[in-house]
Amino acid sequence: MTKEVFWEQWFPRMVEWRRHLHMNPELSFQEKETSAFIASRLQELGLEVKTNVGGHGVIGILKGDKPGKTVVLRSDMDALPIEDGKSCEYKSKVQGVMHACGHDGHASMLLGAAAYYSTYPEEVQGEIRFMFQPAEEVCPGGAVEMIKDGALEGADVVYGLHLWSPFPVGTAASAPGPLMAAADEFFIDITGRGGHGGMPHVTADALVAGAALVMQLQTIVSRTVDPLQPAVVTVGTFQAGTAQNVIASTCRITGTVRTFDEHTRVLIRERIEHMARTVSETYGTEASVRYLVGYPTVVNDEAETARFFRTAPKVFEAEQVMVSPKLMPAEDFAYYLQEIPGCFIFVGAGNPDKQAIYPHHHPMFDFDEDAMRYGAKLLIEMVSSYQNGE
Amino acid sequence: MTKEVFWEQWFPRMVEWRRHLHMNPELSFQEKETSAFIASRLQELGLEVKTNVGGHGVIGILKGDKPGKTVVLRSDMDALPIEDGKSCEYKSKVQGVMHACGHDGHASMLLGAAAYYSTYPEEVQGEIRFMFQPAEEVCPGGAVEMIKDGALEGADVVYGLHLWSPFPVGTAASAPGPLMAAADEFFIDITGRGGHGGMPHVTADALVAGAALVMQLQTIVSRTVDPLQPAVVTVGTFQAGTAQNVIASTCRITGTVRTFDEHTRVLIRERIEHMARTVSETYGTEASVRYLVGYPTVVNDEAETARFFRTAPKVFEAEQVMVSPKLMPAEDFAYYLQEIPGCFIFVGAGNPDKQAIYPHHHPMFDFDEDAMRYGAKLLIEMVSSYQNGE
Amino acid sequence: MTKEVFWEQWFPRMVEWRRHLHMNPELSFQEKETSAFIASRLQELGLEVKTNVGGHGVIGILKGDKPGKTVVLRSDMDALPIEDGKSCEYKSKVQGVMHACGHDGHASMLLGAAAYYSTYPEEVQGEIRFMFQPAEEVCPGGAVEMIKDGALEGADVVYGLHLWSPFPVGTAASAPGPLMAAADEFFIDITGRGGHGGMPHVTADALVAGAALVMQLQTIVSRTVDPLQPAVVTVGTFQAGTAQNVIASTCRITGTVRTFDEHTRVLIRERIEHMARTVSETYGTEASVRYLVGYPTVVNDEAETARFFRTAPKVFEAEQVMVSPKLMPAEDFAYYLQEIPGCFIFVGAGNPDKQAIYPHHHPMFDFDEDAMRYGAKLLIEMVSSYQNGE
Amino acid sequence: MTKEVFWEQWFPRMVEWRRHLHMNPELSFQEKETSAFIASRLQELGLEVKTNVGGHGVIGILKGDKPGKTVVLRSDMDALPIEDGKSCEYKSKVQGVMHACGHDGHASMLLGAAAYYSTYPEEVQGEIRFMFQPAEEVCPGGAVEMIKDGALEGADVVYGLHLWSPFPVGTAASAPGPLMAAADEFFIDITGRGGHGGMPHVTADALVAGAALVMQLQTIVSRTVDPLQPAVVTVGTFQAGTAQNVIASTCRITGTVRTFDEHTRVLIRERIEHMARTVSETYGTEASVRYLVGYPTVVNDEAETARFFRTAPKVFEAEQVMVSPKLMPAEDFAYYLQEIPGCFIFVGAGNPDKQAIYPHHHPMFDFDEDAMRYGAKLLIEMVSSYQNGE
Repeated sequence: MTKEVFWEQWFPRMVEWRRHLHMNPELSFQEKETSAFIASRLQELGLEVKTNVGGHGVIGILKGDKPGKTVVLRSDMDALPIEDGKSCEYKSKVQGVMHACGHDGHASMLLGAAAYYSTYPEEVQGEIRFMFQPAEEVCPGGAVEMIKDGALEGADVVYGLHLWSPFPVGTAASAPGPLMAAADEFFIDITGRGGHGGMPHVTADALVAGAALVMQLQTIVSRTVDPLQPAVVTVGTFQAGTAQNVIASTCRITGTVRTFDEHTRVLIRERIEHMARTVSETYGTEASVRYLVGYPTVVNDEAETARFFRTAPKVFEAEQVMVSPKLMPAEDFAYYLQEIPGCFIFVGAGNPDKQAIYPHHHPMFDFDEDAMRYGAKLLIEMVSSYQNGE
Repeated sequence: MTKEVFWEQWFPRMVEWRRHLHMNPELSFQEKETSAFIASRLQELGLEVKTNVGGHGVIGILKGDKPGKTVVLRSDMDALPIEDGKSCEYKSKVQGVMHACGHDGHASMLLGAAAYYSTYPEEVQGEIRFMFQPAEEVCPGGAVEMIKDGALEGADVVYGLHLWSPFPVGTAASAPGPLMAAADEFFIDITGRGGHGGMPHVTADALVAGAALVMQLQTIVSRTVDPLQPAVVTVGTFQAGTAQNVIASTCRITGTVRTFDEHTRVLIRERIEHMARTVSETYGTEASVRYLVGYPTVVNDEAETARFFRTAPKVFEAEQVMVSPKLMPAEDFAYYLQEIPGCFIFVGAGNPDKQAIYPHHHPMFDFDEDAMRYGAKLLIEMVSSYQNGE
Repeated sequence: MTKEVFWEQWFPRMVEWRRHLHMNPELSFQEKETSAFIASRLQELGLEVKTNVGGHGVIGILKGDKPGKTVVLRSDMDALPIEDGKSCEYKSKVQGVMHACGHDGHASMLLGAAAYYSTYPEEVQGEIRFMFQPAEEVCPGGAVEMIKDGALEGADVVYGLHLWSPFPVGTAASAPGPLMAAADEFFIDITGRGGHGGMPHVTADALVAGAALVMQLQTIVSRTVDPLQPAVVTVGTFQAGTAQNVIASTCRITGTVRTFDEHTRVLIRERIEHMARTVSETYGTEASVRYLVGYPTVVNDEAETARFFRTAPKVFEAEQVMVSPKLMPAEDFAYYLQEIPGCFIFVGAGNPDKQAIYPHHHPMFDFDEDAMRYGAKLLIEMVSSYQNGE
Repeated sequence: MTKEVFWEQWFPRMVEWRRHLHMNPELSFQEKETSAFIASRLQELGLEVKTNVGGHGVIGILKGDKPGKTVVLRSDMDALPIEDGKSCEYKSKVQGVMHACGHDGHASMLLGAAAYYSTYPEEVQGEIRFMFQPAEEVCPGGAVEMIKDGALEGADVVYGLHLWSPFPVGTAASAPGPLMAAADEFFIDITGRGGHGGMPHVTADALVAGAALVMQLQTIVSRTVDPLQPAVVTVGTFQAGTAQNVIASTCRITGTVRTFDEHTRVLIRERIEHMARTVSETYGTEASVRYLVGYPTVVNDEAETARFFRTAPKVFEAEQVMVSPKLMPAEDFAYYLQEIPGCFIFVGAGNPDKQAIYPHHHPMFDFDEDAMRYGAKLLIEMVSSYQNGE
């Protein structure tokens, strides 16, 4: 079968799979049916299949006759607690749950690549692992458990794709080094002493302490972080007080921190904890800080990213292969890259002609399904490049 | 009947009335049964009674044979939306409503004074008006409507008492000039543009604008108000944002302002409105301010307060008659004092032996009922002093 | 000699004395010639004179034949480091030094009172001490040393006057309790680590720490001090940094504190010292605070102030005797009032017709000399009232 | 003459020239003798020489027999107002003036390259311009005037080197795109109304307004600038007030801004001007802002920087050719790169064995003179690569 014929036969099935998953979305850590569906497809393709890896994870394994290295290809598969706002035929059938980030497409692309290699087994050297990971959307995420469960054992390199609607279909982008932010969260409770709105002198005003803290936190990025290190400290919520004429006894502040560098990340955490304490002390209040360490930075391997830039032009027009800017969202693919080299890649999936114009996590989110063919081909070329030592 | 006998007979009835009202509290502007109860008592005492004055207001009128001036004695009669926490026999029978400020006692005291003068009509010179006002607890209050409805027409002087549990029973206190604060309220809505927690540069952070505003508002009292003018600007609540990783698009700040001087009051309002605008502008957000003008300052007439200091020792031991400090709560008695001279007086009502140890507006609030006898006698002596031109 | 004749003879001499002192001003702690001049006058009047009391202090003593109490009358006598801007004939002859606060008038008034009692010795009961104190303008002031040196030994009461140009001549004012502010000063040095203006992350920015401290200090008055207690915390100077493109390694903040109540005074000092430390800690800088305790509050005795209000109408028209507002300047008369009862009184001295329109400490300051006659008479009447037990 | 012999003969002369310039430093815009010295050397070498180009600028021109493009090599030549702290024999002979940034070395390197090409004229294709620019240290700098005077007319590419003591001798570094910051400066004057330290209510406190402004300015980097765009806003100085007990009537704030992107640069300027106005308005003060636009960002051409990375290994060991981080100091080489493509390169010059351990602009600054040979060779290789179209 020629490659052309292969894609004519299999791309429609990839679309079918994707739409099935889109109509039957499952939330993070609850991907039971999704997992079973994927395992069935992999079995039909004749792969060795491991299920319940690190939870609902599934791994399909193909080994070539020729010896070689082990390449891991990773997809995620969880959906989001968002009500599908589209009116197309493959709209979500589950109320309040939706594939609004494209993980359905990721799974389908990876199944497409599996179909390819089961069709052309002679192209496999060493081993290819098709890894379907649960729970990418919710910290602590599925990657950590997959790794603990041995998913990367003996593996040499890992590639992951993300369909990306802000980039047009037909493009691909990545960058060496830090690509996606580490995202941590903080929750600060300030406790003072409330009282009559007209008698501040017998209280310790938790609201004013909180406002002062918000202002001092601004100086972390403006004064403490290396200006060459991108970093964000956002206070997202501030809740204090119960009535306009009563001085607030408590104040709750929550926020998020984005960094691309471990030193900066640790520094910011220390500063937040330090300032919460000293500013509270300034106002005679007490602060307790809960700091939730989220996904680390996605740090692409230099050599593997260079491989992407060499290889992608086989699938995309050369001028459509771009250097990606750093991006503020986080990804638990980061954990794989802490173990073995690899590259995380964005595959353009936007297309105004097909209503693929909404940002990820939007109730109207969709992507151009053609992007899945580009993505599957890119995965195949990356494997080929790696296994052939190009 | 000797005065002694009078009090032996009537004080138990005052207690009875008070307990009846205490068990049947009604919220501000809803004092229908309270009003009817008071009107019945006044009629029984043979007074001319006007009902539905400025709402549920009641006025009992006694005119003496001898010509003279018109003295107004004022009581309030509304209860609060607080669940009675006491377990005594006269506990509130209405769920979630309670006389937690002593207005039941005020009404009873004033009925006691009416009983006195109906018993000793020869002591009346000119006219005495026994005025029972609704809705003291809730702005805009009942006083304004009573005045509109003619309650002060032809009146020469007005006296009002407040049972006050922080002062021990057997004491009385007042002060010339500004005694109780004007209390205004403000509600500020800041509107920015929300967005991804990692992308502050495409947002206008309403939370940071709000925190900055809270800090600048502190300078109104520290820098703009005459240090000799007591004033408070309290931000009581601050609500901004919906999630820790999303930049807040709105921020709502509410607060209260306490002043004892009209110039300062106007100045603070102007500063709050000005700062809400300029600080919002600083951050590229928009602010809308709703400013609710509450009760004005209670300003006692100098001469009538001097009368109190001369007269009260007839009822209280001389050393128990005290100069009151200024107090931060507001009172709509203030409106009467804007029309005619008068004096507002605190009658000590605390007594640890009778569990009268809780602050006003507390679910366990109670007062020593003996304070009502002191109060009724004080009202009588004030009338007598005034009408006799002492 | 009739009283009328006495004043006709002696008032011109008082004016002469005042003008002599005005032309020959001496700075605080340097009042050598002034002291000698006063001592000579007292000796001429036949008083017993003590010199060098607590420095350049002078005391003239008159004892009556009749037994009685000891009344102290106090004047100050130092001038200010201000260049006299007037062009009158009695303009200062000392460059850069001027009686710009009226202490020349105070001394002259007190000499006038001494002349009176030496003329009418039969009016003296017990003892009158005419006390001329050095160094009122400069902390720690002359009062402390005079007291240490026994100036108040055996004394029963003390009176002091201040000519006051903001009030018109022919008026007098005082108030019971706290009348003039306690004035303290603070000097805060913040030390960080400076550095290249483009590299904040390797510095600890003392300037930002200082700015943050200024903002937090505003909350002392707005949140920590009883709103009924007048108080001011002013940061008067802020000096940080050496060049626009270098991050500041040090920041010096200085300021003043005004209070009328010892509790508030101590509280504010503690808050400033606390905040300097916690805000510095917030920014990784170090703060050292020098706190200079100045004169305490002038607290008039209630009974002696009542005496003033009873007595002053003998000298001033009744409606020109007024309750003084609290005043923010400080006075070391406060120390005498910590020892014995007494009263500090303002004697109106302004008069547009005589160019007496400038504030105290202004280069054009002057007062209407007629105020000295009023003042001398008031001193005499206060003594008389006290010694006669009126 | 072999190349080896060439360097054996000429490198000692380069050292001699450098030391001559080091001993005879001249400040920016005053480089008269330096200019004459350079022009003489170029004439000795047989070059066509233009003097007084854009001030004290000098250009030496070499044209090859073979046709080709025009390459510009740029050196600066001004010294700094710093007292030389070294004790070596070539220490500055001019008090308070010193070559503390290595411009003496730059000039010498460029003369060395000129000597090379005058020795091997057959290697010149097209034209080489040896450009010695005055006044790099002081804004508006010498580059602008050189360009106006035609220095780049008909030129195709420009290269510039900077000896860099923080990098060890034997290394070279550069980077494509933005390499050195744009540096602007701002001067803000806030005018309020001063007054007595105890009477804030009759003043408009310029010091508090200034402190508030410093705090709000922190949010420019923390909230308004794209986190991926390095930027610094430093307030370097803050001067307000004259005495601790007087409220400040004026406040002067100065600072510097560093950016790598024109959009961010314009944005920050707008924000500073906006905030100075709105914060001043908040406090009833007035602000005037002077904003001094300094050198733009040094933006290296992508292709020419790629040439550097290809070419430098001919001079340096391959692993000593590095990607430079962005640097916060500014350079007026930026102006040339706005006109024609080119590359700015750092040549490592630090060496602890030769006391070359101090930062640039330090009184003890020195560099390892061997770095000049590396630098001259690098210039020659860049020219050769460009003219040969490698």
